[in-house]
Amino acid sequence: MASLSVSRHSHLLSGFLPARPKPTSGPTRVRMSLRDDGPAIAVVGVTGAVGQEFLSVLSDRDFPYRSIKMLASQRSAGRRIVFEDMDYVVEELTADSFDGVDIALFSAGGSISKKFGPAAVDRGTVVVDNSSAFRMDEKVPLVIPEVNPEAMQHIKAGTGKGALIANPNCSTIICLMAATPLHRRAKVLRMVVSTYQAASGAGAAAMEELELQTREVLEGKPPTCKIFNRQYAFNIFSHNAPVLSNGYNEEEMKMVKETRKIWNDKDVKVTATCIRVPVMRAHAESVNLQFENPLDENTARDILKNAPGVVVIDDREANSFPTPLEVSNKDDVAVGRIRQDLSQDGNQGLDIFICGDQIRKGAALNAIQIAEMLL
Amino acid sequence: MASLSVSRHSHLLSGFLPARPKPTSGPTRVRMSLRDDGPAIAVVGVTGAVGQEFLSVLSDRDFPYRSIKMLASQRSAGRRIVFEDMDYVVEELTADSFDGVDIALFSAGGSISKKFGPAAVDRGTVVVDNSSAFRMDEKVPLVIPEVNPEAMQHIKAGTGKGALIANPNCSTIICLMAATPLHRRAKVLRMVVSTYQAASGAGAAAMEELELQTREVLEGKPPTCKIFNRQYAFNIFSHNAPVLSNGYNEEEMKMVKETRKIWNDKDVKVTATCIRVPVMRAHAESVNLQFENPLDENTARDILKNAPGVVVIDDREANSFPTPLEVSNKDDVAVGRIRQDLSQDGNQGLDIFICGDQIRKGAALNAIQIAEMLL
Repeated sequence: MASLSVSRHSHLLSGFLPARPKPTSGPTRVRMSLRDDGPAIAVVGVTGAVGQEFLSVLSDRDFPYRSIKMLASQRSAGRRIVFEDMDYVVEELTADSFDGVDIALFSAGGSISKKFGPAAVDRGTVVVDNSSAFRMDEKVPLVIPEVNPEAMQHIKAGTGKGALIANPNCSTIICLMAATPLHRRAKVLRMVVSTYQAASGAGAAAMEELELQTREVLEGKPPTCKIFNRQYAFNIFSHNAPVLSNGYNEEEMKMVKETRKIWNDKDVKVTATCIRVPVMRAHAESVNLQFENPLDENTARDILKNAPGVVVIDDREANSFPTPLEVSNKDDVAVGRIRQDLSQDGNQGLDIFICGDQIRKGAALNAIQIAEMLL
Repeated sequence: MASLSVSRHSHLLSGFLPARPKPTSGPTRVRMSLRDDGPAIAVVGVTGAVGQEFLSVLSDRDFPYRSIKMLASQRSAGRRIVFEDMDYVVEELTADSFDGVDIALFSAGGSISKKFGPAAVDRGTVVVDNSSAFRMDEKVPLVIPEVNPEAMQHIKAGTGKGALIANPNCSTIICLMAATPLHRRAKVLRMVVSTYQAASGAGAAAMEELELQTREVLEGKPPTCKIFNRQYAFNIFSHNAPVLSNGYNEEEMKMVKETRKIWNDKDVKVTATCIRVPVMRAHAESVNLQFENPLDENTARDILKNAPGVVVIDDREANSFPTPLEVSNKDDVAVGRIRQDLSQDGNQGLDIFICGDQIRKGAALNAIQIAEMLL
């Protein structure tokens, strides 16, 4: 992976970026994942931050495959990738790339998904798409495996029948991992969300720019502003997604609309304010919840402690609550600051604070969990 | 000021810390502020971040004074401070320090205020206190000059009658600077606040630690954790104030209680989640508002454009909204992301995003505006 666009010299980024695939120990290690009865898979956008995390998660979870294609744009074609002791050459993505591919994991931006997703489906591939291209398409399931697995139960890989499945937006996934178990108990009527979003959501280049800018500012130099049109180091700013005529930006509207679709509840009310903070790869979210039915904070805490993919970090005495740093490179979403909302009468309101790795559960892990359900 | 505890070598901190008093131009400059008919003033905690900003703001605003005492703990006594071309020696704070002092500006922590505030009042001094010691005392006005000047109209300096006036918490000031003009028009019933708070709220040493930690992390070293018991660089965390039995931390409860007192409205409902972000000296707040009466976003924007001490930065097309960096060292609080809340029916809900300099309007400027009303 020496030719990756992400600077591997950087201590900071190497600490925050996807872990490299697990070192193997030569001939004594039995590889369970590369095997004849696994699906043929393809990773689209394999040189990006999420693409790299796809590989890392596939390996971590011993995802079975009989073959894997490394696909990217023409610019990246020809690079070499070592994955689970095997050498691969990155191939240029074309419609024909999907011949014989059972499952394709896409993370190369919405326009690539729109162009090549349907082509893959035509060839019988099940596409798990990390972009926003198909999320709100009524015919495409939008899935968080812990939340709404039933939405994709009719889809399986290797049947020769292609399909699209959309991975939700990272902020939505992280929020709903914690909100859903509470919603199931007491029904959420309204959520007010404020996010603290990491650089990684804008890709590896944004993480590099945050690091570069921070070095520059510390040295008294003007910060380089290529990805974001402003100083990000020691600053926060309203999410860079385009702002719509209703004043919400696209990132915020994803939370509003995707929540309704994933919960299959067109009446749930959501507002969000999405802000970028100078953090590398994990998002945080402050979430105020209003329920139809009573739910006290102790019950909520117990529910969250038993929720799959969720850890509770909520030690008031030690002032120990989730932080983005401690969930970085972790699978679980962490929840804390669980408390009765003083601004709502009765006990039908809670405030909670959630952190989750944006690249992992917010993108690659969720997609591969979806892929696992296809087997 | 060469002996200040804050490292003046640091480009980063010098950029973010209080501006030094304006350079004077020698004998041709007429100093209006040092004059016989001004009050005798004292600055308590003069070597701290807010104490230094007191001096900067006094000078910027040509605050009149016939004398000024520089007071601090024994540890800082004997240091020299040059202020408006005059040499001062920092004196150790004692009860007797206030003999003949008309106005004392306190920013040395709650315990110092509790010990020396009443002593100063006994000597006929009007104390403007930046700590939380007296804020919720029914007999002590809690004042934001643009919001509730009437609360202190019975207090004047130089009458020989001492009094206490409390400066609200920084997060409360910044929030209410924007929320009050809207409250006056449509009556706020409920506010849901999430903060993005700067290092400066924990003092100059916290700002230094953030800078130091950032350098260390960039160099691959473990971060120095003296002020905060965790990594702050490239991370965010729940505010370090102690957490109470209701699960709110003290910073959050200040917003809840101080809002009620300042608005003289015991029914207003407030919830807050206070989070520190790696920013030097300006806070940001995401605020969701619920009103009794209708208020559309265009009217709200016009109201805020005309509000004293508030600037509106709300360019949706250019994705230009307030950031902490651009309000640093500025007097005005900036508001943007003004939009109808999609999660509330009718037009009785708004989301807004506010940024304000924590040391300036959040502390020193507000205190000196209070002092100006005493003249």
